[in-house]
Amino acid sequence: MVETSLRRLSERLGYHFHDTGLLKQALTHRSVGDTNNERLEFLGDAVLSVVIADYLFREYPEASEGELTRLRASLVKGSTLAEVARHLEIGHCLILGGGEMKSGGHRRSSTLSDALEAIVGAIFLESGLDVCRERIIDWFGMLLDSPLDAGNKDAKTRLQEHLQGRGMALPLYEVVATEGDPHNQVFTVACQVPGIGEPARGKASSRKKAEKMAAELALKILQDKSDE
Amino acid sequence: MVETSLRRLSERLGYHFHDTGLLKQALTHRSVGDTNNERLEFLGDAVLSVVIADYLFREYPEASEGELTRLRASLVKGSTLAEVARHLEIGHCLILGGGEMKSGGHRRSSTLSDALEAIVGAIFLESGLDVCRERIIDWFGMLLDSPLDAGNKDAKTRLQEHLQGRGMALPLYEVVATEGDPHNQVFTVACQVPGIGEPARGKASSRKKAEKMAAELALKILQDKSDE
Repeated sequence: MVETSLRRLSERLGYHFHDTGLLKQALTHRSVGDTNNERLEFLGDAVLSVVIADYLFREYPEASEGELTRLRASLVKGSTLAEVARHLEIGHCLILGGGEMKSGGHRRSSTLSDALEAIVGAIFLESGLDVCRERIIDWFGMLLDSPLDAGNKDAKTRLQEHLQGRGMALPLYEVVATEGDPHNQVFTVACQVPGIGEPARGKASSRKKAEKMAAELALKILQDKSDE
Repeated sequence: MVETSLRRLSERLGYHFHDTGLLKQALTHRSVGDTNNERLEFLGDAVLSVVIADYLFREYPEASEGELTRLRASLVKGSTLAEVARHLEIGHCLILGGGEMKSGGHRRSSTLSDALEAIVGAIFLESGLDVCRERIIDWFGMLLDSPLDAGNKDAKTRLQEHLQGRGMALPLYEVVATEGDPHNQVFTVACQVPGIGEPARGKASSRKKAEKMAAELALKILQDKSDE
């Protein structure tokens, strides 16, 4: 029964552990005892962080360090990780102590996000960084296409609301450059908004992402202006 | 002239960049302009963090998540990174803006530690995690043998001072177990100190490290007691 549910979890994760004991440890909450997932979580947290950093570094060639830091924070925060863990249905496979189980630990966001990090740590120990990268990018899926939306409204929506709230005209987006090979293109989008002078620009591997970056920048310029 | 100094830096780093431009970018402070080392630093910071996390995870099989976190913090903090950067003589290779150069940016700890992280990021882009791991472990050298000492006194020294300050007998260290193959041994050390009941235990890949962990734990027990 337990083995069946672990096998199904492996299928959802897209990764089959050589050492099932390692997967079990990754699912074991500290309420069970001394052998739990906390050390794996420590390792997995760092692995997740470098995979996301590397992904964003490559995906957003024009983003500043500050923007990259903000994008990463929105992806690795607890609520986003818990969302991914729920999507992977990790909850009912968790191994919890009695009290923790009664108080609904299976559904607790912090418990879910810790277990997800521990699973990443366990995969890293068995199979290294490249396999972790592949799995994380698969699990995060859509969230990576729009990291700014993770838990927030889309930057384009926020910009539109900001402008409408002030009775201003809506933004105009335009692709002003496309570079690179057909399979490795970089799009530059200009976002024209009344009152910011030069259009705000975003550059990314898809038109949609570039529009969001441009909207994000336009919003920042507008907010800086209103702070003056 | 510049090329000679970069070649010598590569020798000290133990890594020769295929793309010298990448090394130059890693050495370029933001005071120079838009093309600087900040994005590489963002990436390198995450790489450094995962390499140290992985090293400590393997090296201290009995350390708790909290202990691992504390050990890592002592190794990746700015002052430790600056120490490593000074040892590698990165300072005189830095590319700084005029004002920054005049105000002694070559010797500034934050500038040195940022450049070291950026170099890690650049090596990661060219050669991946395994090469980074090898370089980082080589650069950190002795610091990894005694992470708790990075910028602090050795835990054994601190324990001794704590006991002497209170007129108490000195601690006794004893190896109580040795496990594993000759090339992959794990030592358990017991540290007996008056007033803590059971001896404090440390377990690590060398006797010295295990003694330090035991001393650290004994100190913690003594401090918790005095807080009661």
